[in-house]
Amino acid sequence: MSELPFIEDILKKTGEYVRTHYVNRRLLPVHSKSHANDFLTEVDINVQKQLVAEIQKTFPGDSILAEESGFSAYPDKPPGRCWAIDPIDGTQNFLRGLFPAFGISLALIEGGVIAAGGVFMPIQGDIFLAAAGKGATKNDKPTRVTGTAELTLARIDIDFNGPVNREEMITRSSRLLRAAGQIRSHACSVVGFCSVASGEQDIYMVLGINAWDIAAGVILVTESGGTVTRFDGSPVNLFDSRKDVLVSNGAMHGLCLEEIKLPG
Amino acid sequence: MSELPFIEDILKKTGEYVRTHYVNRRLLPVHSKSHANDFLTEVDINVQKQLVAEIQKTFPGDSILAEESGFSAYPDKPPGRCWAIDPIDGTQNFLRGLFPAFGISLALIEGGVIAAGGVFMPIQGDIFLAAAGKGATKNDKPTRVTGTAELTLARIDIDFNGPVNREEMITRSSRLLRAAGQIRSHACSVVGFCSVASGEQDIYMVLGINAWDIAAGVILVTESGGTVTRFDGSPVNLFDSRKDVLVSNGAMHGLCLEEIKLPG
Repeated sequence: MSELPFIEDILKKTGEYVRTHYVNRRLLPVHSKSHANDFLTEVDINVQKQLVAEIQKTFPGDSILAEESGFSAYPDKPPGRCWAIDPIDGTQNFLRGLFPAFGISLALIEGGVIAAGGVFMPIQGDIFLAAAGKGATKNDKPTRVTGTAELTLARIDIDFNGPVNREEMITRSSRLLRAAGQIRSHACSVVGFCSVASGEQDIYMVLGINAWDIAAGVILVTESGGTVTRFDGSPVNLFDSRKDVLVSNGAMHGLCLEEIKLPG
Repeated sequence: MSELPFIEDILKKTGEYVRTHYVNRRLLPVHSKSHANDFLTEVDINVQKQLVAEIQKTFPGDSILAEESGFSAYPDKPPGRCWAIDPIDGTQNFLRGLFPAFGISLALIEGGVIAAGGVFMPIQGDIFLAAAGKGATKNDKPTRVTGTAELTLARIDIDFNGPVNREEMITRSSRLLRAAGQIRSHACSVVGFCSVASGEQDIYMVLGINAWDIAAGVILVTESGGTVTRFDGSPVNLFDSRKDVLVSNGAMHGLCLEEIKLPG
């Protein structure tokens, strides 16, 4: 499909801008959004502006769903063609990170179904791309989830996110936190999805994310052989405003769904 | 002191070897140590061999304390001059990591007191160095801990480590897990220490580590203005075989000690 080269091209172009500003991130003015740990920088805003401008120029009829300013209202019904943008997923990590755990996320959704998606991690220079039915790649090499089938051997990335959803995340992850071989928390949705897709982690779970945080991630993981559902096991509908996702290598998905059930 | 250039030089030299093997890490034979998630590779062993050989050649009378094979017995009393080596701190991350969160750690201890230390993160190319009373640096620029004084604004790195100490870590971190603005888990001691020293995180806590995991980290943090104690607030004695450390920016240390107390 011709959209995939377009996705790759504009991710790399905006990534160059992000890389430049990461070096001087201490000089950036920072705004707080919903709470003290929800940050917004001019880099988020400018990356979104660049992506929106390129999409509107190349595909003028398409609609846009994006994190910042004016594009964040979910449509009442799935639009024909819609681009989901997260200009920087992992802004906290961008601002403070010893490890540059953040990325630009872009996906094309057609009639509610994810047709293609890409994530670019500008500091590492890693690009993840996927198209429906065509597989997924990391830097042009096919990605594949792990075959790990036991929790005691699994690496699980638990995203404790901000204060709003913290208590439910602690409750839901309580048994996995005890059972998993290794626990990580990168607190970045694209890191969670991309690492499961490429086999560097086995499971990722998060509560409190939006369609633009996950659209590219979902197709990257499913095209790599993994599974993505809501916490209750139902399929992910990008436009239902739900905020929870369980991402896995598939082999442990049923097991994890049991473990994250709320008590009672 | 003349040992600091020595530390810098051999860290960078062995780091080059680690970087080369990171690229081909999927080809490495891997051995399990104490449990299924405690890995050892030939890279750990060869880095240690190189560091031991350089130390024995340059400082023939000094003793060595190190993670692998033959150097891991703690001395009965603090030796005169002793080098603490962790060839790769973060072997799990070396093997699987999307983010290369691992480093080589080396410190010189004189009469039980840490005189100098360094950590090299070979993939990022970041070198952290400190000498007692002389301050600490990251890539030749002075490091400084944050002034963050409120848990709701803090980024806390909780190291859940392997299964052996998991339950106690969950219990001790329970209140911080709820109170912290941001939670991370990189599961790597040198990442915890270096990120607190350089202000990229505010607090790090871990249970299940040894003298060689923390010797360089302790001097990096204290020379950057931070505080390192045991979970009960007592000073860190490298040779007492205790496995717990709380690392902070100082401003929140007392607060954290209260929060991590075991109930009852």
